[in-house]
Amino acid sequence: MKRKEFRKLVSVEKAREIINSLQILPKKEGESLENACGKILAEDIVTEINVPPFSRSTMDGYAVKAEDTYACSETEPVRLRMLGNIPAGSDEQITVLGGEAVEIATGAPIPEGANSVVMVEYSSEEEDTVLIYRPVTVGENIMKAGSDILKGERVLRKGRKLGTREIGVLASVGKKEVSILKLHVGIISTGDELVLPGEILGKGQVYDANSYTLYAGVQECGAFPLLYGVVKDNETVMRKTLETAVSECTLILTSGSTSSGAGDIMYRLIDEIGETLAHGVNIKPGKPMVIGRIKGIPIIGLPGNPTSALMIFNEFVAPLLRKALEADTELKKIEKGIMGTDLRSEGRQQLLPVGLIRGRVYPADRGSGAITSLSEADGFIEIPSKVEFIEAGTPVEVTLFDEVAKPGLLIAGGFCPGIDVLEDLSGILFRTLYTGSSGGFSSIASKIADVAGVNMPFPSSKEQSGILYNIPAIKNMGLSGVVLIKGYRRDVGLIVRQESTISGLSDLPGKRLINRNMGSGTRALLELEIAELINEKGINKKEFTDSIPGYFSGAKSEVAICEAVLSGKADAGIGKRNCAEKNKLKFIKFAEEEYDFLVRKEVLGTHEVRRFLETLNSKEFTSRLPIGLQVYERTGEMLPFE
Amino acid sequence: MKRKEFRKLVSVEKAREIINSLQILPKKEGESLENACGKILAEDIVTEINVPPFSRSTMDGYAVKAEDTYACSETEPVRLRMLGNIPAGSDEQITVLGGEAVEIATGAPIPEGANSVVMVEYSSEEEDTVLIYRPVTVGENIMKAGSDILKGERVLRKGRKLGTREIGVLASVGKKEVSILKLHVGIISTGDELVLPGEILGKGQVYDANSYTLYAGVQECGAFPLLYGVVKDNETVMRKTLETAVSECTLILTSGSTSSGAGDIMYRLIDEIGETLAHGVNIKPGKPMVIGRIKGIPIIGLPGNPTSALMIFNEFVAPLLRKALEADTELKKIEKGIMGTDLRSEGRQQLLPVGLIRGRVYPADRGSGAITSLSEADGFIEIPSKVEFIEAGTPVEVTLFDEVAKPGLLIAGGFCPGIDVLEDLSGILFRTLYTGSSGGFSSIASKIADVAGVNMPFPSSKEQSGILYNIPAIKNMGLSGVVLIKGYRRDVGLIVRQESTISGLSDLPGKRLINRNMGSGTRALLELEIAELINEKGINKKEFTDSIPGYFSGAKSEVAICEAVLSGKADAGIGKRNCAEKNKLKFIKFAEEEYDFLVRKEVLGTHEVRRFLETLNSKEFTSRLPIGLQVYERTGEMLPFE
Repeated sequence: MKRKEFRKLVSVEKAREIINSLQILPKKEGESLENACGKILAEDIVTEINVPPFSRSTMDGYAVKAEDTYACSETEPVRLRMLGNIPAGSDEQITVLGGEAVEIATGAPIPEGANSVVMVEYSSEEEDTVLIYRPVTVGENIMKAGSDILKGERVLRKGRKLGTREIGVLASVGKKEVSILKLHVGIISTGDELVLPGEILGKGQVYDANSYTLYAGVQECGAFPLLYGVVKDNETVMRKTLETAVSECTLILTSGSTSSGAGDIMYRLIDEIGETLAHGVNIKPGKPMVIGRIKGIPIIGLPGNPTSALMIFNEFVAPLLRKALEADTELKKIEKGIMGTDLRSEGRQQLLPVGLIRGRVYPADRGSGAITSLSEADGFIEIPSKVEFIEAGTPVEVTLFDEVAKPGLLIAGGFCPGIDVLEDLSGILFRTLYTGSSGGFSSIASKIADVAGVNMPFPSSKEQSGILYNIPAIKNMGLSGVVLIKGYRRDVGLIVRQESTISGLSDLPGKRLINRNMGSGTRALLELEIAELINEKGINKKEFTDSIPGYFSGAKSEVAICEAVLSGKADAGIGKRNCAEKNKLKFIKFAEEEYDFLVRKEVLGTHEVRRFLETLNSKEFTSRLPIGLQVYERTGEMLPFE
Repeated sequence: MKRKEFRKLVSVEKAREIINSLQILPKKEGESLENACGKILAEDIVTEINVPPFSRSTMDGYAVKAEDTYACSETEPVRLRMLGNIPAGSDEQITVLGGEAVEIATGAPIPEGANSVVMVEYSSEEEDTVLIYRPVTVGENIMKAGSDILKGERVLRKGRKLGTREIGVLASVGKKEVSILKLHVGIISTGDELVLPGEILGKGQVYDANSYTLYAGVQECGAFPLLYGVVKDNETVMRKTLETAVSECTLILTSGSTSSGAGDIMYRLIDEIGETLAHGVNIKPGKPMVIGRIKGIPIIGLPGNPTSALMIFNEFVAPLLRKALEADTELKKIEKGIMGTDLRSEGRQQLLPVGLIRGRVYPADRGSGAITSLSEADGFIEIPSKVEFIEAGTPVEVTLFDEVAKPGLLIAGGFCPGIDVLEDLSGILFRTLYTGSSGGFSSIASKIADVAGVNMPFPSSKEQSGILYNIPAIKNMGLSGVVLIKGYRRDVGLIVRQESTISGLSDLPGKRLINRNMGSGTRALLELEIAELINEKGINKKEFTDSIPGYFSGAKSEVAICEAVLSGKADAGIGKRNCAEKNKLKFIKFAEEEYDFLVRKEVLGTHEVRRFLETLNSKEFTSRLPIGLQVYERTGEMLPFE
């Protein structure tokens, strides 16, 4: 019996130590001022000129001796003899004596003898004299030579990241080109399942995101990325790609193929043509990380999952790039927040991807542990080893992935095209988690979501007729501290091909149905409608559903439903009118369901939720609703559950 | 009597209203994913695939039916029949039945029938079977199809600024190219005094910084700048440049020539070939701002001073660009701070450039009112009209110019090359204000600076011999709550040409001297040395100094001193040894002055000051000191003044 052993993990501290010991030497290259913004300065800038190079006027007016104006006033102006006019850029030599003045433009050099400038507003010209109505003090409205930047001063230090202001300083001292640091970082994605964006996706294949996220990440650090594309797990190709990258780059990043099972060619190659410094780091999700060196060029292997790769890049690689670029800028974008929900950790050191909404932090983890979503995480938090529980309300620091917009509302629940309209009109950025109606109720219960879009039906009691929506589910779950806001009605029905002979639910037996997944309100509604039909016709429920092949199938979205019908894999599906119409399929309405919004009471007063509700109640929303969605008299009605 | 009238100013609100009404229509252009980072998305992105497109394994291991593992344990593993191996990217069709397992790689599609994956760590292979040592639950180590991004979902909204994560999402859904918004902004600098960086500076000329700061600023907003260079105040040239820009851009920014006095050609031209919407805004420093339109293309005239131009750009233009680009990102970089000093305002609405150091805000204004420095301001604060006084300690919001490093220490006082060494070794970013020793004392008194480098001499009392440094100045000013930290000694002397016959102070009569400015410690030291010489020789002081032409001159820096000597404009100057040697001039030492650091007691405990002092006391500092600077037994000694 041969039991597979996992490699020896190094500690996070050890991994950092190894990474910090890597020698990365960026090249110095000249760059024009226009293209220098965001780059790292490779040299100290010591100015060879004063800025301004001469004492200049900061106003349009008259250069005078201040002493001449001390006694003047609005009613008793002083009269000075006009010597002439100094425009900006003038190299004229004029000397101002007592009792004299020279007209001077903003930016023009102060003439010899003058020690102040009277603003034009406080003067009037009269033939070859000027009347001054207000006294000035020595130095007034004059910017002295060197008062901005002194000649010989070091104005910018090597390693400075150049922003608008630095670019301005460089221009001010006459620099047209500056020496910047260039660090070429090679990016290689590996994995037989990967194809590049733009190519056609085959079975078992996924698009490579890492090449592009790492490309952007490397750029953000001020380094220069080079893409080597996707390399399949083929030793010859991989060896050749590595050798090319080694000859062209000062650092190589690979991602994927980092597991110890299948496809570990990369490790063997690093071991064979270079040296492995570490393989496996004791941090989640960096476990399969590899650090090595080939011909002196460091190579770091990142996890294949894009969010994990981005976290490990931010945590280990970005600091290395910044160090190599001698950047004095702390690029790590930290934002403080408080945990929005209780969080259990496994006691191992961990980087946890999180969402950050209005200062509230929640795990951006769809429950499958290691796998998280780029589209849901704003950044990550570090959970130290031995921490097994973080209570809701605990302050945490989030390392942001980037500076882009953070969402204002977290909306969970069943998918609805109306949500996109609400987002567009409200001007609030939504983070949407389409988890189905059941998932929506859970997200509100666990205080993760602010708003959940729900359409969960329940048979009415004997006293009432028809179907009740959402309220029974709230009561059954014992939810409190929430408000149900009535949303709008949606046409729900069967979706069939145009030529189909199916005209209603009773035609389903014998037809291949594609149903929605468990937890979907639409699936629950179909069940209720069938129950009603059975009731009417007096037939057996099990017999009826067993007669419909695919009744127990579970497509994750109505888009998938439409595709199954379009492709002929199914004869009928269920969904909303607008999706059927978009796919040019026939829609047979069987119900008008109520799609409502469940809101946590404590967020009702926030600007974002108020704006959301305003938008829901607005005329613009009504007029922009997609087909099959209707607002009605109850839209906006608020039902509190204490 | 014709009194010049200033144009009618519009209010800030009115100016914003006019700017908001400007029609700017960016073009949509395709952009490759590599170049899309930082750009603005021109289209909604609705995915056409699920991410992942199929349910995939998140681990290396064995795909099994979870039910088969429920009873197993470390001591009693369950044995399953091995069906084969599914590598990543595989399109093989395998069905797993009860009692069976398939080896599976991370990322590979889950085979039909399997509902979980056992990690390789909890298994061992034995011939054509596998032993499982731990139970798994349904769904464990599986990432479900569409669990990251659901097909048909809008994953990115039009107007979103693309960061690393957005790029990753686009790649994940297979996008190779996206439609982005392109807004071409023309930039024209005007002014007869301006020359482009890289050119030779004539008399009365300054380098144009605005072209480049605005270029970088426009880029930061996600728009595309086009430079039209410097246009002199010549109507024909300016008209031609404007016409070209109007034909190529969707917005034009000009700067300079905005005063009502000389060079107002730009306004007349806008009036003549277009229309003026506003000329003059009631905000400091935006007063000379102009807003107009030529052939439907908006044109905004900014002030000529670079800091003012950058403030007005941030305040009025950047929001316009963002609006035009439908960017949902708030690009205004606000940081909270508290006023570090009392501040008087003139009661007019004002944008005041400020420095921001460790949360403390101080005016970055060298006292001349309208003129401020790009190299000293980190951003600006808005002071509402009618506010005439802001007390130290008041919380304020700073709009940052960019995201680049903020300094950790504000150091004022006399220039010293030792400061650059301290900065390099400490790793702390310094903001230096070389204001001379006197300026250093004042900056500490007004609580603006954290540290002042001072070398102010004072004659010793009769009981003591030699010259005392800095302590008498502290006492004379009545400074309290400060600590004087003894720095190092600096060789000070006469600087003369190599062939000069001057060998000491007594040779100065009849020679043209270039002295330092008032407030410089070196100038004060020269005076004391001369006093001593006179004392010794029993000659008259006034006679002696009157016999030295230029004794009352005042160069702002020792670099200027060296140049005057090198060029032959002066025969001797005063300064430090290293400056003389750098300029290959002869140095005749007449004193060894003490250069100390005055620190405000309340900042002594900060990390930055502690690091500063550590560095001062370090061996590395001693070994890296420039020639003519020596640490000595008192270096690092701390003298408190309560």
